[in-house]
Amino acid sequence: MRVRKIRGAFEELVTYDQVFVVDPASKKGKWHEVFGNDHDIHAEFGGGKGRFIIEMAKRHPNVNFIMVDVITEVILKAAQRADKVKLPNLKMIMIDLREVDAFFEANELSRIYLNFSDPWPKKKHYKRRLTYRDFMKKYQVVLKDEGWIHFKTDNKALFEFSLNEFCALDMIMKHIALDLHAQNDSDNIMTEYEEKFSSKGFHIYRVEAKFRN
Amino acid sequence: MRVRKIRGAFEELVTYDQVFVVDPASKKGKWHEVFGNDHDIHAEFGGGKGRFIIEMAKRHPNVNFIMVDVITEVILKAAQRADKVKLPNLKMIMIDLREVDAFFEANELSRIYLNFSDPWPKKKHYKRRLTYRDFMKKYQVVLKDEGWIHFKTDNKALFEFSLNEFCALDMIMKHIALDLHAQNDSDNIMTEYEEKFSSKGFHIYRVEAKFRN
Ligand SMILES: C[S@@+](CC[C@H](N)C(=O)[O-])C[C@H]1O[C@@H](n2cnc3c(N)ncnc32)[C@H](O)[C@@H]1O
Ligand SMILES: C[S@@+](CC[C@H](N)C(=O)[O-])C[C@H]1O[C@@H](n2cnc3c(N)ncnc32)[C@H](O)[C@@H]1O
Repeated sequence: MRVRKIRGAFEELVTYDQVFVVDPASKKGKWHEVFGNDHDIHAEFGGGKGRFIIEMAKRHPNVNFIMVDVITEVILKAAQRADKVKLPNLKMIMIDLREVDAFFEANELSRIYLNFSDPWPKKKHYKRRLTYRDFMKKYQVVLKDEGWIHFKTDNKALFEFSLNEFCALDMIMKHIALDLHAQNDSDNIMTEYEEKFSSKGFHIYRVEAKFRN
Repeated sequence: MRVRKIRGAFEELVTYDQVFVVDPASKKGKWHEVFGNDHDIHAEFGGGKGRFIIEMAKRHPNVNFIMVDVITEVILKAAQRADKVKLPNLKMIMIDLREVDAFFEANELSRIYLNFSDPWPKKKHYKRRLTYRDFMKKYQVVLKDEGWIHFKTDNKALFEFSLNEFCALDMIMKHIALDLHAQNDSDNIMTEYEEKFSSKGFHIYRVEAKFRN
């Protein structure tokens, strides 16, 4: 995701301390305390400007949501939007998913959303894709045994790559869709990228995958 | 597949007795005797006019091939073509795959090809699709434990349906391709339908699936 650098973005971000958690490493294993309840925690990895997770948090008050991204300017935008609605069940953190297991305890998450992850189209960059097996193995640690990963993208090559990674990891899969919007599912919440690419006529791919434990 | 009825088609078909096996039920459990060797047997289910299987039989003389179809006129065309090349490792039979286990013994096949199976686009007809679970369970019987099913199609809805059937049957999958021809695989042999639909700009989907025994 290309973003314009904003001077003082991080300084502004930390002021949104109701939604933005500045020291996520210290919360490892304590996320339920952060939310002050025992509800399941669902995370979006690479959440961007937050449209999806904010709407999810509105619709599902009995689930806790954590949005993860690595770019300050993007999270700032998401935090500004979240600030308008003040949802107690939504937090945002700035971390690199390469190190995700430094911020969540084993089995701390009940579900992971991966929406329109960067495709990294060049073959030599496949290890940077968020569905690459080394990432997936870290997700497996932080995700509960019964937890599912929900993945959607408009990118055919990324979807193909991801299905093959999930197969190589011997994951269980279900609800594979090669044209998600043909299903008219009112539970589907569109992300920014989903809106953008489906309006250009791209079909949306989707799958749910779970580790075999 | 729409085909023009041909008078006397069956009478003509039986004359191609080098390739067409008129009494396949009597060969159940004896296909290796039919071929006179112990080579693996690969079958194409719904082979149509035979282009794929004839080319496979040419390229792989140490594998035995059996083409299955249910329409006389279509098999006649395939038999006429096969007659021109006279391949000892190729046989054709006319059966309905609903009854496939009446014609092959358990574990008699080492591989099954499903190429461009009829899509049956209407939702209520899904039980007729050759990748529907009731068909698949019969394939599981006749296929060796280590045998793979190779499936390709241009039809997005059929591919989506099939992937979900394979997942529901907890099959192992590999080599998922959402645009097969982008891979420039010289081992890929085009079927009649593949030629026709890819030349119209359709992408070809492909997957290999195996039962977990
Ligand atoms: C293409 S955007 C999609 C945003 C949003 N999910 C949507 O669908 O509109 C991908 C996001 O993933 C984030 N991302 C990429 N690699 C990451 C990593 N290693 N750690 C955390 N976030 C990452 C990017 O910063 C970007 O915001
Ligand atoms: C769309 S054609 C594809 C032919 C060829 N595989 C190709 O790719 O060009 C599907 C074929 O499957 C055959 N078929 C459909 N249902 C069948 C069944 N229940 N048993 C045997 N063959 C069947 C049809 O007769 C037809 O020839």
